[in-house]
Amino acid sequence: MGWLADETGLDKCEANYVPLTPLSHLKRAALVYPDFEAVVYGNIRHSYREYADRITRFASALINLGVKSGDVVSAILPNIPAHAEAHFAVPAAGAVLNSINIRLDVSTVAYIFAHSEAKFVLVDTAFLELAENAIQTMDGKGPTIIEVADPQAGFPKSGKYQEYEDLITKGEADFDWIMPRDEWESISLNYTSGTTGRPKGVVYHHRGAYLQTMGMVITWQLTLHPRYLTIVPLFHCNGWCHTWMIPVLGGTIICCRDITPGAIYDAVSDEKVSHFGGAPIILNMLVNATDEERKPFEHKVNILTAGAPPAPATLTKITECGFNVMQVYGLTESYGHVTECYWNDRKWGDLHSDDQTAIKARQGVASSMMDSAVVMDENMVQVPLDGETQGEIMMRGNAIMKGYLKNPDATREAFKGGYFHSGDIAVQHPDTYLQIADRAKDIIISGGENISSVEVEGCLMGHPAVNLCAVVAKPDDKWGEVPCAFVELKPDATATEAEIIAYARKRLAGFKTPKQVVFGDLPKTATGKIQKFELRQIFKE
Amino acid sequence: MGWLADETGLDKCEANYVPLTPLSHLKRAALVYPDFEAVVYGNIRHSYREYADRITRFASALINLGVKSGDVVSAILPNIPAHAEAHFAVPAAGAVLNSINIRLDVSTVAYIFAHSEAKFVLVDTAFLELAENAIQTMDGKGPTIIEVADPQAGFPKSGKYQEYEDLITKGEADFDWIMPRDEWESISLNYTSGTTGRPKGVVYHHRGAYLQTMGMVITWQLTLHPRYLTIVPLFHCNGWCHTWMIPVLGGTIICCRDITPGAIYDAVSDEKVSHFGGAPIILNMLVNATDEERKPFEHKVNILTAGAPPAPATLTKITECGFNVMQVYGLTESYGHVTECYWNDRKWGDLHSDDQTAIKARQGVASSMMDSAVVMDENMVQVPLDGETQGEIMMRGNAIMKGYLKNPDATREAFKGGYFHSGDIAVQHPDTYLQIADRAKDIIISGGENISSVEVEGCLMGHPAVNLCAVVAKPDDKWGEVPCAFVELKPDATATEAEIIAYARKRLAGFKTPKQVVFGDLPKTATGKIQKFELRQIFKE
Repeated sequence: MGWLADETGLDKCEANYVPLTPLSHLKRAALVYPDFEAVVYGNIRHSYREYADRITRFASALINLGVKSGDVVSAILPNIPAHAEAHFAVPAAGAVLNSINIRLDVSTVAYIFAHSEAKFVLVDTAFLELAENAIQTMDGKGPTIIEVADPQAGFPKSGKYQEYEDLITKGEADFDWIMPRDEWESISLNYTSGTTGRPKGVVYHHRGAYLQTMGMVITWQLTLHPRYLTIVPLFHCNGWCHTWMIPVLGGTIICCRDITPGAIYDAVSDEKVSHFGGAPIILNMLVNATDEERKPFEHKVNILTAGAPPAPATLTKITECGFNVMQVYGLTESYGHVTECYWNDRKWGDLHSDDQTAIKARQGVASSMMDSAVVMDENMVQVPLDGETQGEIMMRGNAIMKGYLKNPDATREAFKGGYFHSGDIAVQHPDTYLQIADRAKDIIISGGENISSVEVEGCLMGHPAVNLCAVVAKPDDKWGEVPCAFVELKPDATATEAEIIAYARKRLAGFKTPKQVVFGDLPKTATGKIQKFELRQIFKE
Repeated sequence: MGWLADETGLDKCEANYVPLTPLSHLKRAALVYPDFEAVVYGNIRHSYREYADRITRFASALINLGVKSGDVVSAILPNIPAHAEAHFAVPAAGAVLNSINIRLDVSTVAYIFAHSEAKFVLVDTAFLELAENAIQTMDGKGPTIIEVADPQAGFPKSGKYQEYEDLITKGEADFDWIMPRDEWESISLNYTSGTTGRPKGVVYHHRGAYLQTMGMVITWQLTLHPRYLTIVPLFHCNGWCHTWMIPVLGGTIICCRDITPGAIYDAVSDEKVSHFGGAPIILNMLVNATDEERKPFEHKVNILTAGAPPAPATLTKITECGFNVMQVYGLTESYGHVTECYWNDRKWGDLHSDDQTAIKARQGVASSMMDSAVVMDENMVQVPLDGETQGEIMMRGNAIMKGYLKNPDATREAFKGGYFHSGDIAVQHPDTYLQIADRAKDIIISGGENISSVEVEGCLMGHPAVNLCAVVAKPDDKWGEVPCAFVELKPDATATEAEIIAYARKRLAGFKTPKQVVFGDLPKTATGKIQKFELRQIFKE
């Protein structure tokens, strides 16, 4: 401990201690990069001068509406400029941003409104009905609606509520942002997807959001002026905190309201998008795009993918399409991604491409802003680094949530033993790289043997007719559980159950081979994760 | 202030709060980049595995020698691997590193030993006499010497003291580093150059050193695996904190013991150096190198320059030599550089090259880890952004020192009004860029008019025969002070006093023109700063 014998007068003061917050990134960008594009959306193009001005005015408008420090302001918005602006304006008003998944049902939204005690909610015109129904359903008054119209997407303002642009016009341009006095103050509140029971409210602090952005610059090897496309929804870990990071680099956020292969290729080609994040389903979308949807581009495009391990076949194909993909891993509880599959070209540059994609499917190592991400057994002892012994991924670092809102029991449980318990089952390779075997609840136990659904899915994704697939446990009298595959075929492709099973049988141990194959569309969350719990329901009915 | 209405259970804990420290960068590098080169020096090449192992062993050796948490361990070392290692090993032993300028006189070193209460001192064999004399001169026992031999530079161990490599051999490989429990703990102690009175001991904390490294990655647009050359002495603001930063990027430190133009060109060409920092005198050295000293290189080499505003003529020539230079600014009190002259190519890309170099001579804007760097008048009010009104540079942010050791009065004075008072006189341009007019004490006041010595020097540096120059105030009965120029000519160049004065007269106002020119070598500090106070002495004798 580095305390000198005499530390008289060496205390913190205003000159040498400033609470960390991503708000500082935008303050600086407005000074250093005032004429650079901050945000682009269709015919909207705002410079940093304009972006900061709009945010200042909206923050002051929130105060004028009665928002108090620590109040929750919710948002039901797609990835449009108002959503990016809310990431700065809401905390600049001293409030806490709660971005809600736009695909949730009325009852869950009502639950979030009530649990978060939201005072206001920013609602895109297309989602007014959802918000109205939720407010009607819930006990209590519920949040006041501020409508965000999007005329260029076909959603002019309804006239029923105060509107976002009107509030900005009325706001004060010389409003002083409310900066945190303590970097542990809360900046946002994100509800988990809640596959079992009610969603939990994950609270982020200013310090964590700041450090997450600084670490991301290193992870992604970002230099100044990147052009970032919003594919990751801003209601998902605040879009992995990328919106908070972009201003420190003087970069541009290109908003994408509807995520289609055509829209992504258009943005890459026309707006020279250099970076975006997305679940593997986005990679799939890009590799399976039709010729009409594709557009040529010459520059390097970097994708971070997370949410589920991408299938090796997808990784091979996306590289051929001209994208550079790195897998990252994290959870709502960790501000988005906190591990990265750093590509060690010296070690792996000469490997066969199959071996390379196998490595790229790993979750990698803790990023620079984290302390550690390791696999431990139930006694909190790190498992052998043998690539085989399974345990749970445990994490520690400054990009871990404060805890769950109004749920100290769940928080205590999550932080038991001084690490955040991810709930993900993984192995750790000799080079310390993590590789997820499965979510704890997705492991299939057949005749006493553990089967990783991820492994079986990775195999099936290699079949030329398979677009997407999910493998879940099916109850079985003899084996306890057996793997059952749900398969979404590519357009115009055909395959039979027997063909799929035979394909897997050649490549997998017998007990890992699916015993049943069901064809059809797979249920997905807003972020493109396949909802396995819905597939499991089939066996319970 | 973002405190939610109910924050029960949302406190800091081991899982979500880890004190910031640059030690974490090396811990991570040893895991992620074990086989990459960490440090290179002549025939020494250590991988990160070896570098971390040596540091662990030396930290444990320090503990075994009796070093306690908070003890000061000094170093009198050139830029050799042991000095880089000490930046991690000393804090990993819970101690505080005090790197001492190797060019100081015995009495100043004795003062630093006594004032810092150093327990040990790492001494390069070539500087043993300096250390021994200082210990003999001082009151009290003084620090115990640990000798660092450098056989390949012609300095084998003397046999008089315990030696660094022997201690490493004896150290324990499984020693657990002592990580800070509070990020405000002290990590290093750097004495100012002390142009007036005794040097002051500037104390750095772990948090500031960490944040400085993260901000530097953005300033310098660094991506992974840079190859950094140690030109900036490690005893100068801990080498601008670059040694602490390099591991987070898996980069390589190339050590340079003796700074000569040939050594720099060799390292750039042979070791593919990509980055280094240096005072303008280094730029001068490179542009004036002989053909024999030069070596060709094809890659991009980035230089940060600081310590004094580089002359426009030097900036033009260094670019022609294939170097990309950015000016930065800072002080010992600010962990090295904290402002940067960000090059806005959109705005300035089409300007005439003279106008471009004039802009490159500015000190620029606060870097991303800082809160602000502004010019204020004596009432702590920001001066108009007109590029003309002078005031003092005031700074606030996380890369500002804790304060001066055992000098609470000086600390209070330095932080008066909630900003660090730099002592540098500057103007601020309409785009917020700072430009130093002078050190407060270097301003020449002639007949009531302020003359910026920097402006006069910039003019003289354009003269083809001038290698270096310094302009100081000469007492004058009529005008109070008049400018006097001290000029170092280029090898084989000639010029007379009258020629130099005539050259200046054409380009400057009459009262700014030097009234006297003195030819000869200029006295310089270890970091290449010209020691104007010595020049002023001439007029006092």
